[in-house]
Amino acid sequence: MNILLSGEFEAAELHVWLQSLGAALPDAHWLGRDQALAVADTVEVAVVANPPPGSLLGLPKLRLIQSLWAGVDRLLLDPTLPPGVPIARMVDPAMNASMAETALWATLALHRGYFDYALSQRQGLWQPRPQRRADSVNVLVLGLGQMGLSAARRIAQQGYRVSGWSLRPRPDTLDLDGLVCHAGASALPELQAKSDIVINLLPLTAATQRMLDSRFFAALPRGAGLVNLARGAHVVDADLLAALDRGHLAHAVLDVFHTEPLPSDHRYWSHPNVTLLPHVAAQTDPSSASQVVAANVRALLEGRSLAHLVQRERGY
Amino acid sequence: MNILLSGEFEAAELHVWLQSLGAALPDAHWLGRDQALAVADTVEVAVVANPPPGSLLGLPKLRLIQSLWAGVDRLLLDPTLPPGVPIARMVDPAMNASMAETALWATLALHRGYFDYALSQRQGLWQPRPQRRADSVNVLVLGLGQMGLSAARRIAQQGYRVSGWSLRPRPDTLDLDGLVCHAGASALPELQAKSDIVINLLPLTAATQRMLDSRFFAALPRGAGLVNLARGAHVVDADLLAALDRGHLAHAVLDVFHTEPLPSDHRYWSHPNVTLLPHVAAQTDPSSASQVVAANVRALLEGRSLAHLVQRERGY
Repeated sequence: MNILLSGEFEAAELHVWLQSLGAALPDAHWLGRDQALAVADTVEVAVVANPPPGSLLGLPKLRLIQSLWAGVDRLLLDPTLPPGVPIARMVDPAMNASMAETALWATLALHRGYFDYALSQRQGLWQPRPQRRADSVNVLVLGLGQMGLSAARRIAQQGYRVSGWSLRPRPDTLDLDGLVCHAGASALPELQAKSDIVINLLPLTAATQRMLDSRFFAALPRGAGLVNLARGAHVVDADLLAALDRGHLAHAVLDVFHTEPLPSDHRYWSHPNVTLLPHVAAQTDPSSASQVVAANVRALLEGRSLAHLVQRERGY
Repeated sequence: MNILLSGEFEAAELHVWLQSLGAALPDAHWLGRDQALAVADTVEVAVVANPPPGSLLGLPKLRLIQSLWAGVDRLLLDPTLPPGVPIARMVDPAMNASMAETALWATLALHRGYFDYALSQRQGLWQPRPQRRADSVNVLVLGLGQMGLSAARRIAQQGYRVSGWSLRPRPDTLDLDGLVCHAGASALPELQAKSDIVINLLPLTAATQRMLDSRFFAALPRGAGLVNLARGAHVVDADLLAALDRGHLAHAVLDVFHTEPLPSDHRYWSHPNVTLLPHVAAQTDPSSASQVVAANVRALLEGRSLAHLVQRERGY
């Protein structure tokens, strides 16, 4: 079986992927773009990780585009994407766990003031602050996909008061371990008004782009914290900086940015109330992700239904 | 009922305690040292928080010394402590939860490299690092009292491989939610050799003082992290600094120190691999702790057995 493997990989990274994909699908041949074009009529599957635009052209038998990344916003921007070919996102339990760890760490640090203590340490100040109980802290998780749900559940397990929000209602909101889930723009203001911590795990779509703007921040109580683990384009940077500068937001934890790596002159680097991560909140685990790829490829070959299919019109 | 309340309180703090103790025991009169001496024959209970030495002298009817703090090491150093009077430590579920939060936050941060990323941010470096799965990270919790157990359980719930260790065997180690518990000095080396993260929640006694020394650190694998949430006197500071300086230990999270506040010229303040907290890992929650006090006072009055009694000879 010939499979196109296309994406932005460093050499060492490509090596790791080829090893783990090879182990998960021992019968497959993994082809680069040129190799795939030479046997175009035999290539039914493309496994991709932000492939350059045009990478999927000229493959008439393509039946599955499987992303190695959870976010497919960049993939969907490619105007040459072959229409009608199913696209599957990566939904990897190891990656969900990893994202939940970051969301939980940020929640604990914001709740308990550990970013403030780090600042005090740099200033040489011994400055205990009053302590709140977790069950008095309201956490709002935006986005209830696999990652949003994993994060929300873990945070709720620690005793926080967690609300979940998604743009569209989920079909299964009745069975979410006591997590209170809300949907739609009209439900948001009431949730914002009481949120001490907001964690963004929304998909990036036309509807959610630039959603975290001055109006959004103004609707949060003074002293709230923001955790953006989704996409840089969800945030209007100037609005976030203004909200931090005037102390309306106490702190922001940012893993994703409009441009990555974040340009060295960006104010986020040195802002005392910004904690910046280099897009590491949840790195894909090649061995675990390769099993997910293999399961979908086998489903395709055996005519079973594919998992984690993207709805192109909704954008995720 | 007359109760001596004695300790190191700031005015605002004393006010909060008097309010919450008053609400929990509405029939009690809370007396300072001089007031208590004036009615010495009526004082059967002393509620204390690091009382100055000699504070408990001259109260012939004393039947219970109830600490508001979990650690009683300073209290037991008072040579004038009336012999034979039962001493109860504070064991407060809210405080256990609070300690577990700090231990979990430190574990997540060490495991996921968030202290390193904070350093990279200050250096203006965008530097993703490889990511390990939680189930490949070994965490060793020293001390299996209420706080050690709470911390160990929460960390284990996140998928880490947690071992617990105490100096003496616990009677109930068979029922600890799958947590693997060990006891005694001879069990320690094998645990140390595989520990990525060590969390100290031991009581401070003659046997545990200065236990975290160069020999202890040398037995850990290179790159291990240390989290000290117990007492500063558990650590030989010069040994810890040496282990950090030569990179044998990657990072230390320290909440407690030999002298508090930590003197401003101490190297911990500016060490890039030390995260310093001003003794806030688990602050006593007055409303919750007052309920614990009230329950023990009522048990005393009604002739029921007292909870959380200290064994003076073992030191906790």
